[in-house]
Parts: sequence; C-alpha cells; structure tokens
Amino acid sequence: MPSLIHLQEMTDKIILGVDPGSNITGYGLVHIRDKSLSLVTAGILNVSAEEDQFTKLQIIFNGVLKVIDEHHPDEFAIEEPFYGKNVQSMLKLGRAQGVAIAAALYRNLPVTGYSPRKIKQSVTGKGGASKEQVAVMLQTLLHFGKEQFYVDATDALAVAVCHSFQKNGKATSGTKLTGWKSYLQQNPERAL
Amino acid sequence: MPSLIHLQEMTDKIILGVDPGSNITGYGLVHIRDKSLSLVTAGILNVSAEEDQFTKLQIIFNGVLKVIDEHHPDEFAIEEPFYGKNVQSMLKLGRAQGVAIAAALYRNLPVTGYSPRKIKQSVTGKGGASKEQVAVMLQTLLHFGKEQFYVDATDALAVAVCHSFQKNGKATSGTKLTGWKSYLQQNPERAL
Repeated sequence: MPSLIHLQEMTDKIILGVDPGSNITGYGLVHIRDKSLSLVTAGILNVSAEEDQFTKLQIIFNGVLKVIDEHHPDEFAIEEPFYGKNVQSMLKLGRAQGVAIAAALYRNLPVTGYSPRKIKQSVTGKGGASKEQVAVMLQTLLHFGKEQFYVDATDALAVAVCHSFQKNGKATSGTKLTGWKSYLQQNPERAL
Repeated sequence: MPSLIHLQEMTDKIILGVDPGSNITGYGLVHIRDKSLSLVTAGILNVSAEEDQFTKLQIIFNGVLKVIDEHHPDEFAIEEPFYGKNVQSMLKLGRAQGVAIAAALYRNLPVTGYSPRKIKQSVTGKGGASKEQVAVMLQTLLHFGKEQFYVDATDALAVAVCHSFQKNGKATSGTKLTGWKSYLQQNPERAL
C-alpha cells in the first residue's frame, strides 16, 4: 500500500509534451493534480526562417531547455513518428528529436516516446482520429479556445495528455482519470 | 593583416571529430598547432548492450559532453551520411547525431558537418577511398599503430582531420597543411 508521500508524488506533477519537427517544434505543459488535469501553457519553436541546420538545432535545444527551466516539468514525453516520406526527412526529424531529448536528459527528466496512433488513441479513444477530433478533445479537457494555440502546440499538448493518462493509470490504479472512457461516461454526447 | 594574437588563435586549436551511430559513436581529437597536426586521443561510446533507446541517447549525450569537458576542443565536426538503408535506421541515426550535436551546442562549440565522401577526399585525396586507405593515411599523419583504436574511433579521427584541413586552409592561406597534396609531395611512395 503506497504511503501518503508516495501518493502525493504520483498525483502532483507537471508533464512536458514535445512534438519535434525540423521546422516547427511544439511544446505543451499540463499539470496533473490528484485526478484532474489542467493546462499550464503551450507554444512553438519556429526555426523555418533559419537556413543553417545547426542554428536550427541550437534554437530547438535552447528553446526546450528554457521551457524546462521556466516550468520545471517532472516528466518529458515526445511524439515519435516511425515512418516518414524519405530517409532525408527522417534524418532531419531524428536530429530535431535528438536535441529536444538531449535537453530533457540534461535536466534528468524521464523520457517516454509515443507513436502518433497511441497519442490519438489515448486522447480520443480512436487511433485513427483526425487532428481536429484530437484538438476538440483537448480544448474540452484543458479548457482552451479553438484559436488559442498553434496546431503544433496543440499536438504537443496531446503528447502531454497521452503521457498523463498512461502514468496516472499506472501509478494510481482505480483512478477515474483514464482518458476517453471516463470522459465519455460523463459526456456521452461527445462520442466521435 | 592579422595581428599576432589573431594568428595564434587560428593556428592553435583542438578539433573534436564525432561519427555518431545508434550503437557505436566514435570520437577523435586532434591538435592543430601552426602547420602541424597531432593526435590527442580517440575512443568510442558503445551503447549496443543497452535496450532502452533513451538510455542509449543519454549515454551518447553524456559521453560527448564528458569528452568536451576533459579536452576542451575549440571546434566540433561531425560525419553526416545523408542516405541510409531505411527511414527507421535514419531516424535512429538522426537522434544519435542530434544528441551529440546538442552536447557541442551546449558548450558553444561551432559545429560543422561533412559527408563521408568529403572526409575521404580530404584525408586521402580520393572520395572513393576505402576505409583501410583512410586508416593507413591517418596512422601515418597522426603516428598511431594499426591496432591502437577501434574502427569507429579512427573514423572519428578522419572527421577531425578533414575539418582541420578545411579550417586551416581557410584560416591561413598559403600554409603547407592542405592534406593529401602536401603529404604526397613529401611521401610520393604513398600514392593510393
């Protein structure tokens, strides 16, 4: 049986979700407290105007490190697409992922990766959900407006929410915070 | 006309070459002083025994950072293959490159990338040179024995030597240190 301190550790934490890209990297932070999830903030690192690939990577690395140092997340989750259109784009994506992961590792955050399908499944209950369905679910769960964040920032929030559901589910079995299912029970009209 | 201090900066520096891989990352350090090049050290970071991908990346990141903090290189050069057998392997390679680059960026080292062909061309004079030809050239240039380093460490030394030739060529035009050509003039019997 977990002690009160252990339980407190498990149910009060900030999760940083990151969706790296060679041009735009989204980040989103959520706060899990007991059984509720709330929005901390979200944003993007846009390096599309930079020509030098190493300058791009430096901006992503420093940007993620700055987000970590400002918000002190406890855990780091990253979106991991495993298939891309070609080897060249995957190499670039891998590098962007690498520098974002390095920033997390440097601050000793545990890192977990999730496939796009797993993220959609966790957030909406359907692995084949559209980006819009994921966004609507996040807006409802975290109480933010349709135009409040860039698409990539919302994608990063989806990663953070996905991770919150996994970790919370594991850490405190029996909790109501299990994502889509509990949400649907309370909001049956939102079935996608 | 450059001042003496400027000239000193240009001709006394340590270069760290890195050849990242998802399982074995080689590193090699060379010292350029005036017109001569000497070996500092070389080695590998072997993460093949680790199963967790993020643990692998952490070892690479921490390992490169440790090498930087021990040897204080002035510049960082990396081997950049642009084509791989599949997108999956390129993503893994990109991540390994990303964390190695992040370590360099974190210590504010200028980063330069070279294709495998460019490295072979710089070191041996032939872009299509074999690994063995590159190794023999490095052993002669840097005075080390055939069995002294792992293959991946030797590959990383090739990156460092390639970068030394480029930078030195740019920084002090007219110098004799232009790689293969000057070497061949002094050692005509070594033509490959």
